[in-house]
Amino acid sequence: MIPIICVVGPSNSGKTTFLEKLIPELSRRGYRVGTVKHDVHGFEMDKEGKDTWKHRKAGAQTVAISSPSMVASIRSTDGEMDLDELVGRYFWREDILIAEGYKRSHYPKIEIYRSVVGPEPLCGPQDNLAAVISDDEVRTEVPRFGFDQAEKVADLIEERYLKGRKKHRAMVQLDGKRFPLNEFVRDFFTASVVGMLSSLRGWEKPRKIDIHLILEDD
Amino acid sequence: MIPIICVVGPSNSGKTTFLEKLIPELSRRGYRVGTVKHDVHGFEMDKEGKDTWKHRKAGAQTVAISSPSMVASIRSTDGEMDLDELVGRYFWREDILIAEGYKRSHYPKIEIYRSVVGPEPLCGPQDNLAAVISDDEVRTEVPRFGFDQAEKVADLIEERYLKGRKKHRAMVQLDGKRFPLNEFVRDFFTASVVGMLSSLRGWEKPRKIDIHLILEDD
Repeated sequence: MIPIICVVGPSNSGKTTFLEKLIPELSRRGYRVGTVKHDVHGFEMDKEGKDTWKHRKAGAQTVAISSPSMVASIRSTDGEMDLDELVGRYFWREDILIAEGYKRSHYPKIEIYRSVVGPEPLCGPQDNLAAVISDDEVRTEVPRFGFDQAEKVADLIEERYLKGRKKHRAMVQLDGKRFPLNEFVRDFFTASVVGMLSSLRGWEKPRKIDIHLILEDD
Repeated sequence: MIPIICVVGPSNSGKTTFLEKLIPELSRRGYRVGTVKHDVHGFEMDKEGKDTWKHRKAGAQTVAISSPSMVASIRSTDGEMDLDELVGRYFWREDILIAEGYKRSHYPKIEIYRSVVGPEPLCGPQDNLAAVISDDEVRTEVPRFGFDQAEKVADLIEERYLKGRKKHRAMVQLDGKRFPLNEFVRDFFTASVVGMLSSLRGWEKPRKIDIHLILEDD
C-alpha cells in the first residue's frame, strides 16, 4: 500500500496552507500525490440543480461524471470509510496519500502547531508523530520545521516513507476491509495470480492488476 | 460485471428528467443504482476556494473528501475513462449502472426521442437499442414507451438485464483495461483465488473480494 501521512492540527491552524506548499514540492520530485480531507460535518460537493445532483436526489447510491480530463464521483456511505479503504478504492495510481485530519488514525502524522492553542502539540511520539510544523517555540521530541520549510518536510517524507519501498505491492480487501498478508504470502499470492493470468490469450505484463470478484451465495 | 444501460438522446431531450423517474423505480425494487454522466466539455464539481479545490490546484492528482455519510473524489485523467473502467473503479457496490450519454458505446441503449429533432431515432437495433422513450409517433423496431412509463421501462430492464444473472462475477483489469475471461477461466480463477486466500488466518467468506497488485519492474 502507498504511504499515508496525516496532517493534523486544530481548525484554522494552517493545515491547508501548509499542504499548498507541500503538495507542489512532492509533485516536483515526481511523486503522484493524492489528498483526502476528513470532514466530520458532511460536505456539499455537488451543486443543486446539476444533473448529477438530480441523479442522487432520485436515489442513485453513487454518481459519477466523466470528461476527457477528469472523473468525479459521489457515493453515499453507511458510516465513515477508513483510510485503508479510501486508498484501495480511490488512490490506485498515486505514490503517496496526504490526509488532512484523521488525528486518531495510526498513520504517521505531521502536526501544525501554534502556541496560542496550547502549551504543546496535541500528538506525541506515541501517536506516530513524525514532525511538527510551527513558527513558535515548541517542546517536542520530533523534528520541528517552520511554515516556509515545506522542502525540508518533503525531504523527511521522502527519506522515511518513499525511498527504498518495494514496488511489488498487493492489497486484498474482503467486503471492503483490508485482509492482511505477510510478505511471504503476498509474494506467493501475487506470483500465483500473475502465473494464472499470464497463460491466457491477450496477456501483456501490466504494471497494475485489479481484480474484483463477487461470490455467489452457496 | 454489473449491467450498464445508456440513456441517449440529443441535449435537452429529457434524459435527466426520464432518469429522475427511472432511478426511483429501480431503487424501489431493491436494486442499488449508480449513474454516470458523460460530459464532453469538462465540468466544474468542486468550488473555488474549498480545501479540496486548493489541494488540486497545488498539484494533487486525485483528491477525496470523506464524511460519515458520503465520499466524493475528483481525479485528473489523461483522456476519457471508458465505461468498463468506470464500473470497476467506482461502482463496486451497485447492481446496475445507468449512463447518461455514451451513445457510441456497445452497451444497451434507451433513446429519448422527440419528433422535432428528426424523422427517426438516432440509434437502431445495430446500436444495441433496447427501447425508445417518446410521446411522439416513431418508426422503430424496438419497444416504445411514453415519458410517464418508467415503470414499464424498469420491467424491461429487470427482465432483460437484471434477472437470472449469475451472481458469481469476476473482473480483471490490467493497467485499468478489462482483461476478458471466458466463463470456464473465470470460475477456475475465482476458485483458485478464494482457495489461496481462504487458507489464511482471518478469512471469513466475503461477498466481494478486491485485489490490487502492483508489479515490480524486472
